[in-house]
Amino acid sequence: MASVDTSLPAKPTGLAADFASEHEREHPLKLYGGWFCPFVQRTWIVLHEKDIPHQYIEINPYQKAPEFLALNPRGLVPTLAVPVGNGGHAQKPLYESTIICEFLDEAYDDEATYGKSLLPSGNAYERARCRLWIEHVGSKIVPGFYKLLQHTPEKGYSIEEARGNLLGQIKTFVKEMDAGGPWFLGERFSLVDVVLAPWAKRLFLIDHYKPGGVGIPAEGTAGEDEEVWKRWRVWLGAITKRKSVVETWSADEMYIEAYKRYAEDTTQSEVAQATRKGERLP
Amino acid sequence: MASVDTSLPAKPTGLAADFASEHEREHPLKLYGGWFCPFVQRTWIVLHEKDIPHQYIEINPYQKAPEFLALNPRGLVPTLAVPVGNGGHAQKPLYESTIICEFLDEAYDDEATYGKSLLPSGNAYERARCRLWIEHVGSKIVPGFYKLLQHTPEKGYSIEEARGNLLGQIKTFVKEMDAGGPWFLGERFSLVDVVLAPWAKRLFLIDHYKPGGVGIPAEGTAGEDEEVWKRWRVWLGAITKRKSVVETWSADEMYIEAYKRYAEDTTQSEVAQATRKGERLP
Repeated sequence: MASVDTSLPAKPTGLAADFASEHEREHPLKLYGGWFCPFVQRTWIVLHEKDIPHQYIEINPYQKAPEFLALNPRGLVPTLAVPVGNGGHAQKPLYESTIICEFLDEAYDDEATYGKSLLPSGNAYERARCRLWIEHVGSKIVPGFYKLLQHTPEKGYSIEEARGNLLGQIKTFVKEMDAGGPWFLGERFSLVDVVLAPWAKRLFLIDHYKPGGVGIPAEGTAGEDEEVWKRWRVWLGAITKRKSVVETWSADEMYIEAYKRYAEDTTQSEVAQATRKGERLP
Repeated sequence: MASVDTSLPAKPTGLAADFASEHEREHPLKLYGGWFCPFVQRTWIVLHEKDIPHQYIEINPYQKAPEFLALNPRGLVPTLAVPVGNGGHAQKPLYESTIICEFLDEAYDDEATYGKSLLPSGNAYERARCRLWIEHVGSKIVPGFYKLLQHTPEKGYSIEEARGNLLGQIKTFVKEMDAGGPWFLGERFSLVDVVLAPWAKRLFLIDHYKPGGVGIPAEGTAGEDEEVWKRWRVWLGAITKRKSVVETWSADEMYIEAYKRYAEDTTQSEVAQATRKGERLP
């Protein structure tokens, strides 16, 4: 068990600590999360965007609370406890971050209270197109991120290959963005932006740990891809300043600590193990 | 190129041939499909269930029509051409079978014309729960099906392991079904039923090609799992008689021919190749 990541801080720090403590009081809608988990951050961003009343409960991944395991025996975070029936005293579980995000958007749909929907309402084609690109983030960009972050010289693929793959998947995504921006859909912030935000915030970890870093070309050096990376910088600048993203983020150095074992490829997390085995992420 | 599957019939047969020819006339909503593809059948079932006017275009996977590749350069089926703007003369592409199915359900939502929604309207939690189990079908049961069908003695896993995995994933799913049935949600037919139907219809191929077959226990032989498999038989009986499933199905022997190369693990289809490499299905 030498590789169990027990040295991690047990709680959020920085601005995320404030957001967590503002939501520590008992509430029938509960998010069970881990401060450094990007899938949890997706859910957290939606709760923040729509200002949805809830309780945040930090889960120690190595000592999962019994009431949490009773709700979701698989024990994965994020898990959402949803109040159903019995005056809100009975709860049912939801998991899978994109399903939770879409649920929150649908269940808290009163625009006067919760703001605009995070998917384009009234346009089924545009909603479907959003789902396609949410799927691209989850099935191409996110696995590509871990493949590069967990690269070690012993791997059967080179770091250049891993970097080229990640950049290629990001480029494919950026080419689908509204040209004007700043968001994927243009002026409207949506779940497509939400689902990529946690990894956009974590790209600096690859720069920190990997020789050559993420390798996104600096301004004026991208040749025929200049416009694509310009559009990327517009989006990245906007997303890293978005209040819901900023306020669900702990101190930078805590992530450096948390992801050290990913960079050494010794963590036992489910995402890391699946990446190592070349399997679909859990 | 010896393993290119060129011996396949070029068109649907049986009842699917009738359904295809009823929809061969020009229409701005076009489904590009292949008669033996289970992902296409999902989409076809939804079009049939809701009686949505459309044009069906059979795609030869080894000689893809230029107008199809212009619409979707990745060339995967199913692809849906959706009429947008310009009086329906302009079309945009959608792909990914579950995204297409949900799109059709949302876009053709007038109950008087198209019948009940295929997801529980007015209940965000139940919709999210449906999406969780649709995801289970796609990420657990479908890959398990191919792992067993493509098993050969040379594999790094035994046929018992592949069978145990598939049966385990089916059991997990069945335990989530409404106890009364016949459908996943009880009396209401939904997308959860749709997404599994094509593989339920194809289970006989495993019985045909693999020693020991699928291995679902016969009535009275399942011990503590008796109730689970009883519930499965109720669902299987209902789904294999559902009109939309029956009428999007070609002649049994055509599937036996089409899946021969899967069973020998020599097909070059994208699903088969991903299964072989242990990758996420496309």
